[in-house]
Amino acid sequence: MSFARLDELCRKLDALGHAEAMLQVDEAVNMPAGGGEKRAEAMGVLAALAHDLATAPAVDDWIAAARSEDLDPSQQAALREFERTHRNRTCLSAEFVNRKVNAQIRSEQLWRNLRPKADWNGFLPAFESIVALAREEAQLRAEALQLSPYDALVEQFDPGSRSAEIAAVFADLKRFLTGFIPEALEAQARRRAARPAKPFHGEFPPERQKMLGVTLMTAVGFDFDHGRLDISHHPFCSGVPSDVRMTTRYTTHEFLSSLMGILHETGHGLYEQGLPAERQHWPSGKARGMAMHESQSLFQEMQISRTREFWSFALPLARDHLGLAQLAGFEVDDLIAHVQKIEKGYIRVDADEVTYPLHVILRFEIEKDLIEGRLAAKDVPEAWDAKMRDYLGLSTIDNPKDGPMQDVHWPSGAFGYFPSYTLGALIAAQLRAAMERGMPDLGAQIARGDFAAINDWRRSKIWQKASTLSTPEIMLQATGERLSAKYFEDHLRQRYLD
Amino acid sequence: MSFARLDELCRKLDALGHAEAMLQVDEAVNMPAGGGEKRAEAMGVLAALAHDLATAPAVDDWIAAARSEDLDPSQQAALREFERTHRNRTCLSAEFVNRKVNAQIRSEQLWRNLRPKADWNGFLPAFESIVALAREEAQLRAEALQLSPYDALVEQFDPGSRSAEIAAVFADLKRFLTGFIPEALEAQARRRAARPAKPFHGEFPPERQKMLGVTLMTAVGFDFDHGRLDISHHPFCSGVPSDVRMTTRYTTHEFLSSLMGILHETGHGLYEQGLPAERQHWPSGKARGMAMHESQSLFQEMQISRTREFWSFALPLARDHLGLAQLAGFEVDDLIAHVQKIEKGYIRVDADEVTYPLHVILRFEIEKDLIEGRLAAKDVPEAWDAKMRDYLGLSTIDNPKDGPMQDVHWPSGAFGYFPSYTLGALIAAQLRAAMERGMPDLGAQIARGDFAAINDWRRSKIWQKASTLSTPEIMLQATGERLSAKYFEDHLRQRYLD
Repeated sequence: MSFARLDELCRKLDALGHAEAMLQVDEAVNMPAGGGEKRAEAMGVLAALAHDLATAPAVDDWIAAARSEDLDPSQQAALREFERTHRNRTCLSAEFVNRKVNAQIRSEQLWRNLRPKADWNGFLPAFESIVALAREEAQLRAEALQLSPYDALVEQFDPGSRSAEIAAVFADLKRFLTGFIPEALEAQARRRAARPAKPFHGEFPPERQKMLGVTLMTAVGFDFDHGRLDISHHPFCSGVPSDVRMTTRYTTHEFLSSLMGILHETGHGLYEQGLPAERQHWPSGKARGMAMHESQSLFQEMQISRTREFWSFALPLARDHLGLAQLAGFEVDDLIAHVQKIEKGYIRVDADEVTYPLHVILRFEIEKDLIEGRLAAKDVPEAWDAKMRDYLGLSTIDNPKDGPMQDVHWPSGAFGYFPSYTLGALIAAQLRAAMERGMPDLGAQIARGDFAAINDWRRSKIWQKASTLSTPEIMLQATGERLSAKYFEDHLRQRYLD
Repeated sequence: MSFARLDELCRKLDALGHAEAMLQVDEAVNMPAGGGEKRAEAMGVLAALAHDLATAPAVDDWIAAARSEDLDPSQQAALREFERTHRNRTCLSAEFVNRKVNAQIRSEQLWRNLRPKADWNGFLPAFESIVALAREEAQLRAEALQLSPYDALVEQFDPGSRSAEIAAVFADLKRFLTGFIPEALEAQARRRAARPAKPFHGEFPPERQKMLGVTLMTAVGFDFDHGRLDISHHPFCSGVPSDVRMTTRYTTHEFLSSLMGILHETGHGLYEQGLPAERQHWPSGKARGMAMHESQSLFQEMQISRTREFWSFALPLARDHLGLAQLAGFEVDDLIAHVQKIEKGYIRVDADEVTYPLHVILRFEIEKDLIEGRLAAKDVPEAWDAKMRDYLGLSTIDNPKDGPMQDVHWPSGAFGYFPSYTLGALIAAQLRAAMERGMPDLGAQIARGDFAAINDWRRSKIWQKASTLSTPEIMLQATGERLSAKYFEDHLRQRYLD
C-alpha cells in the first residue's frame, strides 16, 4: 500500500525527469537563443515541483510503512535505494539549498566572465563563499549520512565510494605514474623516430564524419531505435534509457577528435540503453553514479576504440565513408600514433589517458583539503602550482586560467565529483582484465567488429545491476576483487612501453 | 494573497505546458520510434499532474478570495479568464473524464485501422459510444456553463462563440457559395483557355525550398531568435511564444504545397510570437481560441500569400533560391493559377478556400444534430451523402473513407471544433477589409514586401489582446462590427470572378 504510493511518486518524478532531460537536450541542440529565458524559468519551476513532491512530509511515513510490507527482493532493493536518495535529498534545509543555489549561480557566472581574463583575485571572494557553503553542506550531509564530510560529498556522485579507499588507490597510481610517464614519453619518441607521425590532409565533411560515426556506433551496439546522434557545442550523452540523445561536434581538418568523442559518449549510451526495462522509474533502476558511468564511456573509448584491434576493423570503414584520398597511405599504425599520443599539458579535458589521472589526483587532494579545512580558498593557486610542478613539471602560478580556474566544477559548487573520472578509468581497465580472463579471444572479437559477447558481459555484470548494488559491490561481483590501480597500470604499460 | 497563489499555480501549469509542448514537438520531429512508449507514459503522468494541480479543492477558495482583493485591470482580466478555464476544467468528474479518454483512445485507434478499409460498419459501435459520451459531456458542460449543449462544446475551442450566430453566418455563406461556385469555376475555365496552366519541371531540392521558406518567413515577420522551422510528417505550429516550433514537409516535384503550408503555419507563429510578454503564464495571456488562431494563419495564407501582390514580391526570391531553370518562363500569373486554383472534391484538407466552407458547414450541421439528438450516429453516412450531393454535387454513400471517416476530429471526440476553420476564414477577410480601410495602400505594401504596418495593426488589435477579451469582443473592437460573411464573400468575388 505504502510501497504503491512510493511507486506512484517515482513515476511522477521519473516523468518530470524525462521532461527535464529532454528540455535540456533540446536547449543544447535545437533551441533558438531567444527561447532561453523562458526555458530556464520553466526548468526551474519543474525542478521545484519535483523537489516538493519528493520531499513532502508524507513520504517519510510511506517509507516507514513500506519497510514492514511484504516486498519481493527487487522491491526491497528499490525501497533501499529510494531511502538513500531520499535521505540525501532531505538532509539540507530549503533555506540552505536556496542560499547555495544563489551563490553557485553567481559564482559560475563570475567564473565565466573572469576565467578568460585569468582574474583569480576578482573571482576569489565568490570562490571563498562557495568553499564555505560546500564545507557547511558537507557537515550537514555528514551528520545525516554518518560519513566524514568529504565522503558525504563524494556520495552524491559515486554512492558507496569512500575517500580512504580512493586515497590509497590514487597514492599507488601517483607513485606509478611519476616513474611511468618519462618512460612512456621516451618510448613514444623512439616510435616517432622510426615512423614519423602522418598529418591529415584535405577536408572531412561533417556529413561523412557523421555517417562513419553512426556506422561505428551501430557496430558497437548502439540502438538507433532508442536514440540518436545530433550536434551541440559541448558533446554529451543525455536523454532517457528508452531514447538516448548523444551529441558531438565536427571540425573539418581531421575526424578523430569527433569520432573518439562519439565512441566515448556511446559508452554512456550503451549503459543507459542496457539498464533493466523493469522499475526504471525507481532510483534503483537508474545508472549507478558517475564513476560507473565514466567507466562505461572509458571502456568504450580506451579499452576498445583506441586499440590496434579496433582500428584494423575500423580503418576500412573510415576509408569507405571519409574517402580514399583523405586516408591515402594511412595504415593502422599511423592511426594508432594519433589515438595513443601522449603529452604533458595544463588542461585536464585535453589530457591523454596517461597524464589525466594526475590532473584528477591533484584536484582530489586539493578539494579534500579544502573541505576538511586544511587549505584556505585563497591558497589554492599555490597548492595547485606546487602539485602541477611536482606531478607534471609544469608551473601554473602565473596562469590561473589554465590552473585552478580551468574547470566549471568548483565554481558551480561540485566538490567530490573529480575522483569519478579516474575511478572510471581504473574500473574500465579492471573490467577489461576480468572480461579477458573468461574471453581470451577478446582482441580478435574486436578486430572482426564483433561486440556481442563483450556487450553481453557488460549487460549482465554492470548494466542490468543498475543501482540495486553499490559501485564497490558491483565491482566485487564482476571482477572478484575490490577496485585497484593494478589493472590500469598494466594496461598503460602494455599500451605505451615498447 | 490568493491572487499570488493563483499566480504561482499558473506558473506551475505553464511550466508543465511548456514541457508538454516541447515533448510533443520533439516526438514529431526528432524522437526515434522506440522512444514512443515511455514518452507517452511520461506525457500521461505530466498531464495528470497538471490536472491534479489545477483542480485541487483549494483553488476554488483562492478564486473566491481573489475576487475581493485589490486587483489592477489586467489582474482582473487574468482572474476572469482563469475562472472561465477553471469552470471548464472542473465541470466533468474524474470518473467521466476517465471513461471519455479511454473511449476516445479506443475509437481513434479503431478509426486508424478501419478508415483505409472504408469499414464504416466496423467503426460504428465505437462511434456510437463516442457520440453518446459527447452528448453526456455536452449536457454536463451545458449545466455548468449555462449554455446550450452544443454551445458548451464550441466553447472549448472558440470561447464566446455561439451556435445561433454561427448558424446565421453559415446559412448566409452557404446560400452565397451555392451560386458562386459554378460562376467561379466558369471564370477559371475561361482564364485557363486564355492562358494554359504551366506545370513545374525539374527537381526542387528540400534545402533550397527551406531557404526560400525561411527567407519568406523572415520577410513576413517571423522571428528566428524565438522559433525555428523543422520537418515532420504532419506540418504544425507548436512550442511556446518565446520559442515557436514550426514544421513542414517537402516534395521535390514542386514547391508550392510546402511553401504555402509554411506561410499558413507562419500566421499561427506570428500570433504566438506577438502575444504580450507579460502574464503569459495566465490563461488570459494565451492565444484566443481556435477560430482566432486559424484566422491568423488564413490571413497570412489567403489574404497575403495567395495574392498577386505577394507573388510579384516573392517570385524573384523564388527564382533566386530555387534556380532560374526550374522557374524559367514563369510569370506572376502562372503562379497565381496554381495558388488560386479551385476544384470540387471529397476531402476537406485538400479543399481550396472557395469550397472549404461547405465541407465545414456540412460537418457543423451534422455534429449539431448529433449532439442535440436529432440525428443518430448510424445515420451519419446518409446525412453526409445528402449534404455532399446538395452542396458540392458529389456522392459519398459508397465511399465512407472519403466521407464521414475522413477526419480524426469525431473519432477522437472533438465535437464543436469544425466551425473554427471557417470562422477563421471569415475573420481573416473581415480583418483585412478593416485594415484596408485605414491603409489604402495595403496591396502596394505587400508588393514591396513591407509587412511592418500590417503586423503592427495585427499586433495591437489581435495579438496583444491575447485572451483578455472574447473573440466577438476582439472582432468588434478591431473591425467595428460583429462577425459577418460579407467580407469573405466580397473577397471571393474579387479574387475568383473576372
